[in-house]
Amino acid sequence: MNVADDSAPKGPLSGYRVLDLTTMVSGPISTMMLADQGADVIKVEPLRGETMRNAGIKHRGMSSSFLSCNRNKRSLAIDLKRPEGLDAVRRLLPSCDVVVQNFRPGAIERMGLGLEVARAARPDIIFVSISGFGEEGPYAGQRVYDPVIQALCGLADIQRDRDSGEPRMVRTIIPDKTTSVTAAQAITAALLHRERFGEGQHIKLAMLDTMVAYLWPESSSGLNYVGNEVDPARAQMGLDLIFKTLDGYITAATVADAEWRGFCRAVDRPDMLEDPRFASATQRSAHQTERRKFMSDAVSGYASADVIARLRTEDVPCAPVYTREQLMRDEQVLKNGIIEQHEHPVIGPVRQPRPAVRFEKTPANIRSLAPYLGEHNADILRDAGLSEADIAALAEAGVTAAETPGG
Amino acid sequence: MNVADDSAPKGPLSGYRVLDLTTMVSGPISTMMLADQGADVIKVEPLRGETMRNAGIKHRGMSSSFLSCNRNKRSLAIDLKRPEGLDAVRRLLPSCDVVVQNFRPGAIERMGLGLEVARAARPDIIFVSISGFGEEGPYAGQRVYDPVIQALCGLADIQRDRDSGEPRMVRTIIPDKTTSVTAAQAITAALLHRERFGEGQHIKLAMLDTMVAYLWPESSSGLNYVGNEVDPARAQMGLDLIFKTLDGYITAATVADAEWRGFCRAVDRPDMLEDPRFASATQRSAHQTERRKFMSDAVSGYASADVIARLRTEDVPCAPVYTREQLMRDEQVLKNGIIEQHEHPVIGPVRQPRPAVRFEKTPANIRSLAPYLGEHNADILRDAGLSEADIAALAEAGVTAAETPGG
Repeated sequence: MNVADDSAPKGPLSGYRVLDLTTMVSGPISTMMLADQGADVIKVEPLRGETMRNAGIKHRGMSSSFLSCNRNKRSLAIDLKRPEGLDAVRRLLPSCDVVVQNFRPGAIERMGLGLEVARAARPDIIFVSISGFGEEGPYAGQRVYDPVIQALCGLADIQRDRDSGEPRMVRTIIPDKTTSVTAAQAITAALLHRERFGEGQHIKLAMLDTMVAYLWPESSSGLNYVGNEVDPARAQMGLDLIFKTLDGYITAATVADAEWRGFCRAVDRPDMLEDPRFASATQRSAHQTERRKFMSDAVSGYASADVIARLRTEDVPCAPVYTREQLMRDEQVLKNGIIEQHEHPVIGPVRQPRPAVRFEKTPANIRSLAPYLGEHNADILRDAGLSEADIAALAEAGVTAAETPGG
Repeated sequence: MNVADDSAPKGPLSGYRVLDLTTMVSGPISTMMLADQGADVIKVEPLRGETMRNAGIKHRGMSSSFLSCNRNKRSLAIDLKRPEGLDAVRRLLPSCDVVVQNFRPGAIERMGLGLEVARAARPDIIFVSISGFGEEGPYAGQRVYDPVIQALCGLADIQRDRDSGEPRMVRTIIPDKTTSVTAAQAITAALLHRERFGEGQHIKLAMLDTMVAYLWPESSSGLNYVGNEVDPARAQMGLDLIFKTLDGYITAATVADAEWRGFCRAVDRPDMLEDPRFASATQRSAHQTERRKFMSDAVSGYASADVIARLRTEDVPCAPVYTREQLMRDEQVLKNGIIEQHEHPVIGPVRQPRPAVRFEKTPANIRSLAPYLGEHNADILRDAGLSEADIAALAEAGVTAAETPGG
C-alpha cells in the first residue's frame, strides 16, 4: 500500500482520531472523507466484517463497494460481545476525538459504547449518531434502506414519470451519500468549536431530515409561501434536455438569448433566429414543446462529437452524455486527474476518484486503500495500550480476527 | 424578521465573517449552511440583484428559490464596476475570514477581488473558488448548467431507461447541491486548520470532480479493479421497488430472509413461504422478476396506509411514496420538526426546512429569512469603516441600491 511521505503537507484533519463504528454507506463515506483529509480513522468491525464486505462484486476477497467507502482507514475486527473485546475498544476511547455510529437508536447503548461511556472516557468527545428517521418518533425504531428515504423525502415524487404520473426512484443512493457529506461537515464544525472553546458534543443527523433540507431549495420552492402555495411539480424546472445524435446522446441548454442564437447558428439553422415563437426567453418558455422538438430534430443529424464542437464554438452550454467508461477517457477528467490509479500489493491496480476538494496548503489524498478485515488489529490495540502478550491472547481466544489478504 | 436571543447558544461557525460573491445555487447554498451554523455571511450583489432573485415563483417581490438559498445572510447591493463600489468591498476584506466566489475562471481577478487582493488585505484569508470543470483544461472557460454536469459525470447514464436504454436526467439539481455541501465541509476544514496553525489557503472545487467522487462508491464499483472491470450498469443495485396500491404508491424492501417472511405474512400469503424460488436471498435474487411481480400483485389489493401498517407490524422496511405536500403532514416529519414556519413582516408566513444537523451545544438555526436586495447596505458599509456621510453619498450616486420590501 502506498503511504504518503511523512514530510508532505498533511490534510486539514490530521492529528484527529475517529472511532468509526458505522456500517453500510452513509457512515463509512462520512468517515472516509475525514480520513481523506488526514484523520486517523479506526474502523471497528465484527469478526465476520461489516455487511458491505460481502456486498456486490469481489476481487481477491475485497468487495468493490467496501473498497470505495473505506480507504485511508485502519481495520480492527473484534468481538464486542465478549468483555475483553469491549474493554479493548473502551481503552481506545481516551485517544479518540470523534466517535461515529449509525446503529438503530438505542443499540449503541446496549453494546456498551454509548454517549455516556464515551464521554466518561473522554469528556470533550464528539459523539455522532446517524439515523434513518431520528432518535424518537413513530419510525425511529424501523430499519431503513435508501429507497425508503427516497419514497418519503419527495425524491421519488420529483422523479415522477411525465406521461404515466408514476413515481420513480433515482437509481443511485442519493440519501445515503448526501447524509455522508452532511455528517462530515457537521463533524468538522464540531471539531472547530472544540478547538476554539474546548467543548465536545453530541451530533444527531437523520437521513430523512438531511434529504428534506437538501431537496427543498429548488424542488419545494412552491411550498415556501404559506397560503400562497404553488404545486411544486409545476414550479420545478424541467431538466430532461437530452437529445439523440447519430451515435449517442448530448445535452444542450439555451436559456439566455445568446445561447439560443448560438444554438441556431451551430446547427446551421439561422432561419430560426427570425421565428417569433422563440424570439425571447419568455417566448421560448411559452413554446417549449416546439422548441424541444426543433432542437431534437436539429441535433439528430449530427454525430455527438461534431455537434458538441459546433455548440462549443458558439459558447452554448453542452456536453455529451457519457457512460461511466467514457467518462474516464474525457479530456477534462484526465486534465483534472479526477480518477487515480493505485497499486495494491494483493489486489493489483485499483481505480479511485481522488477527493474532490483541492486544498492549497492541506491536501486531501489517498494514502492507503481500504483495509482487509483486521489488517491493523495489532497496531490499533497497541494504540489502546495493550501489551504484545494481551494482543496475542485476544487473537488466540478468537476475540479478534483477521482475514488473509486475497484469501 | 425573527432574530435569535443573544444569550442563546450559538452555531459552531459564529464569529466568522464570509464575503459571499456567489450566485445561483452551488455557492449560495454552501454559504447558507455556514450562515445556518452562525457565520456572518455578507452577500454582495449587483445593483439589480443576483440572477436567482429573478428566477421562478415570486411573492411580494421575493423569489422563492432565492429565499431558500440565502437565509441568515445580509445583502449589500453595490456596483463593483465603479471604483467607489470596489473600494468599499475591499475595505471589508480585512474583517473577512472567508471569501467564496463561483464565477468562471479568471473573472474574479478581472473584477479586482481575486486571491492576491484578498490575501494582501487579510494574509490568512480562506479563498474559495467553485467552478464547473476546474480552473484549467478544455472546458474550464465554458458556461455550466447543472444538466451539463449530470450528462458528463455519469448520472444520466445511471438513470438510463431500462427498456429503451435512453439516458435520463435526475429532475433536481443534484450536482449543484452536492457541490454546496462539499464546499461547506471544505471551508469548515480550512477554518479548523487556520485555527490550529494560523494559515489561510485557497480552496478549489469543481462540480465535475465533486460528482465523480460522490457517485463513484456505489455506481462505479464495477470499474475499481483495473483489468477486471464489470459493466457498472450491471454491478449497480436495482432500486425501482415502487408498488401501486389502491390509492397510491409504496416502497418495500425484502433483502433479508426475515424481511421476505414478514412481507409474505403481511400480505396474507403464507403459502409463498414454501415457494423454493424465494427460499433464500440468492434464490430471490435469481428470480427477481417473478418476485417483483408477486410483490406488486400482492400490494395492489390494499390501500397504502393499510399495507404500510401491516408491513411495519412485520418489521419490513417500507414507506408510502409521498408527494411533497404529503411529506409535510407525515407524523415523523412533524415529530422531528423538520419544516419550520417563520413570520416575515412583509412576506407573511414562510416555510423552510430547518438545518438537518442537530448540534447539542452549538445549534444551527434559522435566525433570519433571506434579505431583500440591499437590505443591509448601511450596516455592512459601517462594518467596512465607512462614515454615515460616505454611505449616504454612495447611495446618492447610485453605487449602492436597495429595493423596497414587497415592492
